Amino acid sequence: MTVTQGPHPPNSARGKRPKQGQPVIDRAMSLLAVFTDRRRALTLSEMARLADMPVGTALRFVSRLAAWGALERLEDGRYVVGVRLWEVASLSPRGHGVREVALPYLEDLFEVTRHHVLLAVRDNEQAVLIERLSSRDATEVAYRVGGRAPLRSTAVGLVLLAGADANFQETVLRKAPEIEPGVINMPEGQVRRTLSDVRRTGIAVIRRSVPSLTVSVASPIFDAQGAVAAALSIVVPDGSTPPNVLAPAVRATARAVSRNLGYQAGVTNDILTGSQG
Amino acid sequence: MTVTQGPHPPNSARGKRPKQGQPVIDRAMSLLAVFTDRRRALTLSEMARLADMPVGTALRFVSRLAAWGALERLEDGRYVVGVRLWEVASLSPRGHGVREVALPYLEDLFEVTRHHVLLAVRDNEQAVLIERLSSRDATEVAYRVGGRAPLRSTAVGLVLLAGADANFQETVLRKAPEIEPGVINMPEGQVRRTLSDVRRTGIAVIRRSVPSLTVSVASPIFDAQGAVAAALSIVVPDGSTPPNVLAPAVRATARAVSRNLGYQAGVTNDILTGSQG
Repeated sequence: MTVTQGPHPPNSARGKRPKQGQPVIDRAMSLLAVFTDRRRALTLSEMARLADMPVGTALRFVSRLAAWGALERLEDGRYVVGVRLWEVASLSPRGHGVREVALPYLEDLFEVTRHHVLLAVRDNEQAVLIERLSSRDATEVAYRVGGRAPLRSTAVGLVLLAGADANFQETVLRKAPEIEPGVINMPEGQVRRTLSDVRRTGIAVIRRSVPSLTVSVASPIFDAQGAVAAALSIVVPDGSTPPNVLAPAVRATARAVSRNLGYQAGVTNDILTGSQG
Repeated sequence: MTVTQGPHPPNSARGKRPKQGQPVIDRAMSLLAVFTDRRRALTLSEMARLADMPVGTALRFVSRLAAWGALERLEDGRYVVGVRLWEVASLSPRGHGVREVALPYLEDLFEVTRHHVLLAVRDNEQAVLIERLSSRDATEVAYRVGGRAPLRSTAVGLVLLAGADANFQETVLRKAPEIEPGVINMPEGQVRRTLSDVRRTGIAVIRRSVPSLTVSVASPIFDAQGAVAAALSIVVPDGSTPPNVLAPAVRATARAVSRNLGYQAGVTNDILTGSQG
């Protein structure tokens, strides 16, 4: 599924602008965006402070969001993200949609390795993790489902960046990379060569030392239009199974998911050799 | 996690009321709510019609929602639910939160049966399915992740209803049940006896004939406060493994998940024998 990203057409700025200079919807959404992995339950005043608005205004918005079910109020008075929002969000084709198609194949791959299997999509200049299968005794990894990862220094990120259009790649390459703890920061020239390799081989490999010594092997999932819809990876302790042994299984699984998204293998070469490289 | 449900306090009605008599946030949310399992991509005018608002108004709202990432615009101009919304929604403790804790245990159960394993939570008078593990050759089932199911005529629904407070149960029992295709509709007295049995045994069993002949066996998951947080079930073809053979595995898995949510087994009796019954 190809999605128009980046700045929205001019009429997107025409929203209602009340006294505080920001459309009501933006302010409502900013109250949803204050929740993070480490802040899953917040008081009204915490929400107001984090969203930078008066408590009275926040109360009005939060009450409406809670009435609709986007927020839920705990017995201690704090608010959490609601099941109703999760229900609507589960209809996101690039979130839950890809995940639904991919899950049985991820499970097959997981049964082979018993470590971690990840599925990620690109959202602007980051990767969003939409699934992670992990055995209870698997090595510790950096990312949780719903979390974000940089494009330049993760295996799924490199796969997603390699599949993006050339202009977008330039934008990302021209910026200073996000510093990832425990990952060797590649200079720009090396990233370019790596992206070209990823397009040619269908495989990206990244080693990291934080939170534990791991190696990730990722491969692209293509949609019916031949665009890179998602990236799939496995993460194992570094020094266990070598990446070149893991690569065929990762690539085969990614191809099986692609086929189920309507991808026709015939156009593979166009993408893997890429006129963008 | 105990959540305050039902009507919101009076100040929830104090939202901003522009000309069309409905707060802006409610109207924005109504544009998100038009998406369903069968309508995952919609044009602007379809969204306006389904949300019952003028196209111009819908455009303003949709543009803001798209700029934030709650919606994404496809190349053909249609809109879908965005990954950004999915990302925020993944922080829902009752959605993704329970699911994250439960997933490894669901997988263990799934490996034993190789059919379907479901996880559901209650949202008002329905169950919302938050996870489903299915093998590719499993029998067809009625519900998808993010979808809703009635409380009175599904195994997970009965478990969630049995764990709800007495007033809520009365509200549900006094209403006409939702008609479920292929499920025998239990009269009110039988539902009451069933709920009492579910509290006593920790197991609910439902047979259905649509979309295929299946039997579901469900058990409650308790949170740290001893409240029913979710329901877990397995669904197998009717006539394969009998429910009484499946029940111990379902109950043991539900207890393992409960323990990981902070549930202390000591209070089991209070809940299973329930003063509510």
